[in-house]
Amino acid sequence: MFEARLVQGGLLKKVLDSIKDLVTDANFDCSPNGFSLQAMDSSHVSLVALLLRSDGFDHYRADRPISMGMNLNNMAKMLKCAGNDDIITMKAEDAGDTVTFMFESPNQERISDFELKLMDIDSEQLGIPDTDYAATVKMPASEFQRICKDLASIGDTVLISVTKDGVKFSTTGDIGSANITCRQNTSVDKPEEQTTIELNEPVCLSFALRYLNSFAKATPLSHTVTLSMSKELPVVVEYRIGDLGHIRFYLAPKIEDEEMEDEA
Amino acid sequence: MFEARLVQGGLLKKVLDSIKDLVTDANFDCSPNGFSLQAMDSSHVSLVALLLRSDGFDHYRADRPISMGMNLNNMAKMLKCAGNDDIITMKAEDAGDTVTFMFESPNQERISDFELKLMDIDSEQLGIPDTDYAATVKMPASEFQRICKDLASIGDTVLISVTKDGVKFSTTGDIGSANITCRQNTSVDKPEEQTTIELNEPVCLSFALRYLNSFAKATPLSHTVTLSMSKELPVVVEYRIGDLGHIRFYLAPKIEDEEMEDEA
Amino acid sequence: MFEARLVQGGLLKKVLDSIKDLVTDANFDCSPNGFSLQAMDSSHVSLVALLLRSDGFDHYRADRPISMGMNLNNMAKMLKCAGNDDIITMKAEDAGDTVTFMFESPNQERISDFELKLMDIDSEQLGIPDTDYAATVKMPASEFQRICKDLASIGDTVLISVTKDGVKFSTTGDIGSANITCRQNTSVDKPEEQTTIELNEPVCLSFALRYLNSFAKATPLSHTVTLSMSKELPVVVEYRIGDLGHIRFYLAPKIEDEEMEDEA
Repeated sequence: MFEARLVQGGLLKKVLDSIKDLVTDANFDCSPNGFSLQAMDSSHVSLVALLLRSDGFDHYRADRPISMGMNLNNMAKMLKCAGNDDIITMKAEDAGDTVTFMFESPNQERISDFELKLMDIDSEQLGIPDTDYAATVKMPASEFQRICKDLASIGDTVLISVTKDGVKFSTTGDIGSANITCRQNTSVDKPEEQTTIELNEPVCLSFALRYLNSFAKATPLSHTVTLSMSKELPVVVEYRIGDLGHIRFYLAPKIEDEEMEDEA
Repeated sequence: MFEARLVQGGLLKKVLDSIKDLVTDANFDCSPNGFSLQAMDSSHVSLVALLLRSDGFDHYRADRPISMGMNLNNMAKMLKCAGNDDIITMKAEDAGDTVTFMFESPNQERISDFELKLMDIDSEQLGIPDTDYAATVKMPASEFQRICKDLASIGDTVLISVTKDGVKFSTTGDIGSANITCRQNTSVDKPEEQTTIELNEPVCLSFALRYLNSFAKATPLSHTVTLSMSKELPVVVEYRIGDLGHIRFYLAPKIEDEEMEDEA
Repeated sequence: MFEARLVQGGLLKKVLDSIKDLVTDANFDCSPNGFSLQAMDSSHVSLVALLLRSDGFDHYRADRPISMGMNLNNMAKMLKCAGNDDIITMKAEDAGDTVTFMFESPNQERISDFELKLMDIDSEQLGIPDTDYAATVKMPASEFQRICKDLASIGDTVLISVTKDGVKFSTTGDIGSANITCRQNTSVDKPEEQTTIELNEPVCLSFALRYLNSFAKATPLSHTVTLSMSKELPVVVEYRIGDLGHIRFYLAPKIEDEEMEDEA
C-alpha cells in the first residue's frame, strides 16, 4: 500500500508540467525514502531525476517499495483537473494496476478522485556518481529561462563560459551572433535575485539549446536554478522544490567537432 | 417597427458569444413580451431557448410580432464591435430585410451603426411543457464549466448522480476514470458560491460532455447555473441573465445501451 | 563609426515591431541628423518613413553618413532579446558588414551584445513633398486601431469622411454594412483622449483596410495618431515617438472604380 498526501498539491501539478514534454512514459518509485523518478528523455539524450522526499509530504506511507509505470501526459491531464490550492493524495495498492489521485478543495466542498491505469515500462536505474564540480552557478531561474529562449532565436548551441566574475552565454547562427553576460552579484537584498558563482576552475562547455529550453519548463517550481559544470561531464541543471525535494536534469556537453560543424 | 435599447449592451455581446458556436442560423422573435429565440443546435441534438423580456430593456417597442432570421456568427461579429460599456439599440422595420445595431459609447463621442442582412430561415417553435423536475441543482457556473472541461479530458460521457448530500459527476475513458463530487453547501456567505439541491427523488443520468461544454460558454452571463433533471427527460441547463431573462439549454440523456457501448 | 545610445531602449523594440510585418528588408540611414528609414512595403503599395532624431538619443555619433541594410525580422528577433527597461546601444564601423546591438539591464548586472549581419539592398529615396492637407484628424491611437480592426471584420475598404463635426469610417461587405462616427471632442481633460479636426475642406477618401491595420501596429508607440488627408493624395498616418521622432505611413486612396467593384 502506497499513500502520500500533499497539502500544497499545486507543486505536484508543476512537477508534471515541467517533465511531461521531455519524458513520455516512466516508472515512479515509491519507497520509504520518497517518491522518485529517473528517466531518459524520449530521444535518449538527457536524463531527468526527480525526488520528492517522504518527510516533505504531509502524510506518507509506503509499506514496501513499488514502482508505478505511467504515461506522463495522461498523469498531467489528471493533475490538471486539481485546483492550484487543492490537497492532493496519491494512493495505490501494492499489486494494483491503477493509481488514484484524490483532490480536495480547501473548503472540502469538492472532492475528486481520478484513477489512472498503470503500464509496464522497462527501465534501468542509472547510478549517478557524486561529483565535485569545477563551477557551480546559482542564478534566478527566470533569468536562465529567458537567456535560453533568447539565444535559441539566434542559434542552436550555447557556449557557457564561467569565470569568477560572471557567466557568459554565447551562440552563433545564420543571422549573426549573441553574447549574454551575467555578472556575479551577491549584493541585492533578495537572495533569489542573486547570481553567485562557486569556482574551482574556469569552465567553457557547449550544449544544445533545445534541451536547456526543455529543462527551463521547471522554472515555475523554484526562484533559482543551479548549473553545475565540469569539463567533459554532463551539466546538472537543478531546481529545488521547496522543502520537498528537487528535480535535476543532466545533459552531456557537445564535443569540439560537433560545435565546429554547427558553426560551419 | 421594432426597437430595443439596452444600456448594459455588454450583456447582448455575451448572449451571442454563448450560442454562436452551437447554433448557426436562427430566427429571433420580437414580440411585445420580449426578444426571444428557440433553435436546435446544428447537429439537431440539443435545443437553445433564449428570452430577453421586454421590461428588462431600457426602451422596448414591438408594434407587431416580427421574426428576424440571422446568421449568428455574423451577428456576433457585429456585436463584437460594440464596446463592453456601450449602449446597444436594435432596430428593424416590420417588413425590412435588415436589422440595425447601434452602439453608443458611454460619453456619446463615438456612435456606430451596423446593418446586418436578414435571411429566411424555416423553423418551427417547439412547445416545451412545464415540468416538475425530480432534482434541481443550483451551483456556481464557473464550477460547472470547470467540471465539464476537466471530465472531457478523460471521457466523452458524464454520469450525473444527484442525492440529497451532493451531486457527483463521473466519467470513464481510455486512460482511466474520474469522479467529482460537489457537496450541498448553503453556509457560505455569498449566495453565488452556494451549491443547493432540491430533491424529490434521486436521479442518475448520462449526457454527452461535448454539449455540456458548449452550454457552459454561457458562464460569463451568470454567477450560477441551474441543472433540472428527471428520469428519461432532457436536462435543462439554465443561466439567468440579470433581470433581463434567461438562456436555457435542453439535452436528452443517453440511454443505457449507449453508455455501455461507450464504456466498452 | 556610428554609435547611438538610447536609455529608453523599449522604444526601439516597439519601432521594429510596428514595421517588421510591413517591410521585409530595408536600409537604415545613419547621418548626423539621425537614424532614419524609408521603405515601400513588400507589395509596393504603401510607404513607411521613420525618423529618430540624433538629439533624441542619449548619445549619438555618426562620423559620416552610412547606410545599413537589414532584414527587419532578424533585427526584431535580436531586439526582442532586450528587456523593456534595458539601455540599447547600436554600433557599426563605417565599412563593416555587421551592426552590434548592446543591451544593458538597468542595474548593469546583465550585458548582452548581439551582432547582426548586414545585407546589400537596392533602394532609392523618394522625395516626399510638404503638403497642406485639406483635413487633419488627431485621435487616440487605440481608437483608430480598434475601428480599423472592427471594420475589417465586415468589409475590405473603408471610406473616411471628415467634416468639421467629426470623422466617419464606413464599410460594406457581404454580411451588411457599418458606420463608425467619432465626434470632434476637445473637452476631455487628457489631451491624448481628444479627437480634434483641422479642416480646410471636407474630404471623403477610400482606403484598403488591410494596410491601415498594418499601420496600426505602431499603436504602442504613441497615445495619439494623426491622419492627414487631401483629395487624390496619399493619406499620412503618423505616430509620434516621444521627443525622439516619428513614424509615418503613406497610402494612396482607392479610386472610384475600384470602390464600385469592391461593393459589387
